[in-house]
This record gives sequence, structure tokens and C-alpha cells, in this order.
Amino acid sequence: MLDGLRVVLVSPRNPLNIGAAARAMSNFGCTRLRLVNPYNVAFKEARSAVRAGYILEQAEVFERVADAVADCTLVVGTTAGGRRDLHLPLHRLEAGGSLLREHLTAGAAALLFGSEKFGLSNDDMSHCHWLMRIPTRDEHASMNLGQAVAICLYELRREEQEAERRFPPPPEATAADFERLTELLGDVLSRSGYVNERVSRSSDLKLRRLIRRVGMPANDVETWLGMLRQILWKLKEPPP
Amino acid sequence: MLDGLRVVLVSPRNPLNIGAAARAMSNFGCTRLRLVNPYNVAFKEARSAVRAGYILEQAEVFERVADAVADCTLVVGTTAGGRRDLHLPLHRLEAGGSLLREHLTAGAAALLFGSEKFGLSNDDMSHCHWLMRIPTRDEHASMNLGQAVAICLYELRREEQEAERRFPPPPEATAADFERLTELLGDVLSRSGYVNERVSRSSDLKLRRLIRRVGMPANDVETWLGMLRQILWKLKEPPP
Repeated sequence: MLDGLRVVLVSPRNPLNIGAAARAMSNFGCTRLRLVNPYNVAFKEARSAVRAGYILEQAEVFERVADAVADCTLVVGTTAGGRRDLHLPLHRLEAGGSLLREHLTAGAAALLFGSEKFGLSNDDMSHCHWLMRIPTRDEHASMNLGQAVAICLYELRREEQEAERRFPPPPEATAADFERLTELLGDVLSRSGYVNERVSRSSDLKLRRLIRRVGMPANDVETWLGMLRQILWKLKEPPP
Repeated sequence: MLDGLRVVLVSPRNPLNIGAAARAMSNFGCTRLRLVNPYNVAFKEARSAVRAGYILEQAEVFERVADAVADCTLVVGTTAGGRRDLHLPLHRLEAGGSLLREHLTAGAAALLFGSEKFGLSNDDMSHCHWLMRIPTRDEHASMNLGQAVAICLYELRREEQEAERRFPPPPEATAADFERLTELLGDVLSRSGYVNERVSRSSDLKLRRLIRRVGMPANDVETWLGMLRQILWKLKEPPP
């Protein structure tokens, strides 16, 4: 049931936490572990973790979040929450877990965990559709990474009942699709003078968030890309 | 709400696990930690665990399970389950958690976790009223101690909090919004040569359907309209 889930650890630093995450994944039957930019020594040490070795052996390593979530149609971030303006819908784990379970009946999803010290950055979050928070105490909200992974997976498996297969929604555009759209639209906007080159870094984040808030069936992606390409071509056309 | 709960670790061996248990207790607002016959070095090391120090400071140490649960009216054991004849009722965590929560409204209860290697012994279990099992995979049932404590406490706190202050989903764009987007995008596409004027009627329909399949929060509509206006303006700009 968790076949479609990819657990993505962004910049993990402690081998014990990577090992603990892998062990919890093995406990709850989830095999696809991905690491973004891990501290390398940590990853090598973690590979020796007991009994979850096969998960670490198969773990994939990426440099960028965009690549680690490219094949997913839903990207969910985790946060200790509340400390900053998150720009994204925030669900408690119970509600978020239920949305995520439903999505997993139809498509792949990534569940992102940030580094032990800093959690997910704004940049990491700009790849997410929404965020999920484990209902810890406000006074001590931040959880240990391995424990947070374990609780999230437990919640996903909790209601063992055959995941309610409602009407399967049409397949959604993947994160890679949205990334292509973001890039192309970024070019169009900068060519049309909407975006000032000098502020383009923060604009990139805004644009990615804007596009993540859009829903789109996978079938329409090529049409939108085609439109943007044509517009870009026209904007670049030299004056007659 | 977890005031009446005592988390009892029986013969824990690894200081990291004791620290992790204390941290999860702090995360979920449970303060009474009891250790039965801990490996002493481990306990001393664990006392340095970050941010959950007050729980470890106040932790009580006992030699026998009987003493550690003496003031409780319910004693619940945890197990990876199934391997032996347990002689006791066994509940899955969801059901057991609910019984335990109910009991805690009226009296004190102890939740026992066994050592990392062996779990609870038959002797330990003889102090229990019933057992609880986290629904892990049969093929890899045994959880890390710190993660098991975290999941049990999460389950106990899960439903309790005041009726989920969910975050209402943001209002969606209206049909009128989509109509404005359709018109403006139509202009952009025709100006950029994507749409041939002569077939524009059927293209209008296709375009409207395409846009109707997009989901969009109402708050984003003006941003998208602004982008399209800028692109259109640029496309119309006379060559220099």
C-alpha cells in the first residue's frame, strides 16, 4: 500500500537518524528511500544499520529536491510548524495522512523531511503542494528525525482497511512537469519584462509556489508547454 | 491528559534510546518516566539528552517491575507480538490506545516497554492487564525502542486535541475568474501565432475547457492576470 511513497530526507546529517528512518520504513513496509545532499560520511555509516540494510542499499541520492521528487504527483513537506509564514496549506498529520493515503491509491507521492537542525528550507518547501505537522506540544514541537518518520508511516498504515478506492481521479501532472512549466514560464516572464533579472532568485521561488498551487491533469501538460514555447518564440522573434 | 501515564522502560541498554524516549515524551506532553533495572552507564549518558533533560532528571529508577507500577490501576505491556503464547489479551495500538485513553481520564496507568534485544519477559508481562502491539509488518515487527515510544504517545494524543483546527482550504477561483483568464490567454495565444484566427471559435472552446481543468486558489487569479497582461503588452509592443 505504501509502494507509491518515496521518503525523502533532505540534507540529513546524523547516520543514526538515516538508519532509524530506514528501520521504520522496513517496519511499515515502505521501501523507497531518497536522500538529497546527505552528509556523505553519515550516509556511509548508516548503511550498516541493522535489518533495514536493503532499504539503504537501494536508497537513491540526489543533489536537488527537484530531481528527488520528479516522478511524484504529490509532494508533501513536514514541519514542526508555526514559526514562520509558510505560504502553504498546513494539515495536522491525521488529516494530511488521510489525504496522502487517498492520493497513494492513484499515484506516487514524496514525503519530505528536513535536516535535523533546520528542517525544510523555504527553497525545499517551494517544491511542496502542502505541509503536514505532527501534533506535538507548542513548547517542544521539534521531533527527532527518525521518530518523525516512524510516526508518519504509522499514521499512513494505521487504518489498514483497504484504501477506499473512490473514483480514481485522472492522473495529475508530476513534479517534473511542473518544474518544466515553471522554467518555461520564468523565461517568458523575464523576456516580457514581468520579472526583473536582478530579483529573479526570489521570483523563482514565488513562481514555483504559484505553479504548485495550480492543479493540472497530466494530459494537459504538453498543451501548456506548447503554448508557452510558442509565446516565448514570438517574444524572441526579431523585429521585422 | 497524559498526566496519569507512566512510561516504564524495562532494562533499557542504549542511552540513545532512553534519550529518544524522553524526547518523545516531551514532544507529546508526558513527563513521568520510570526505569526498571537500567544499564547504569546508559542512564547516566542519557541524562545529557537535549531539551528533554527535565524528564530524565525526574525519572525514577526501580529494581523491580512490581515497584515501578505499584501506584497504577492499569498496566499495559507492549510487544512486537505473535512469537509466543502471550497468555494475555492483545490489542492493536489503535484499539488499545483508545482503551488506555479512556482509563487515563479516571486513573493512573503504566505503559511498559521491554529491552531493545528481548522485549518484555514473561515475568514482566505477568504484571500486565493486557498487551498492545504496533501494527508493523510480520516480516520485520520489532521496532526501535525510541520510535516505539514515540508512536504510542502519538496515538494517545492523536484524537484528544480540541476538534481539529484544520486549515480550511483557500477559496477557489470563480467561473468569472476563469473566464477572464480564458479571454486574456486567448488574446496572448492569437497574438503569438499559436491560434489561427480563422479557427478561433473552436479554439475558444478548447481553451476554456483546458482552463476549467486547472485548479487555482482565488488569491492567485490577479497574479496570473497580471502576468498575461504584461506578456500581451510585450507582444504588442511595436518593434523599436
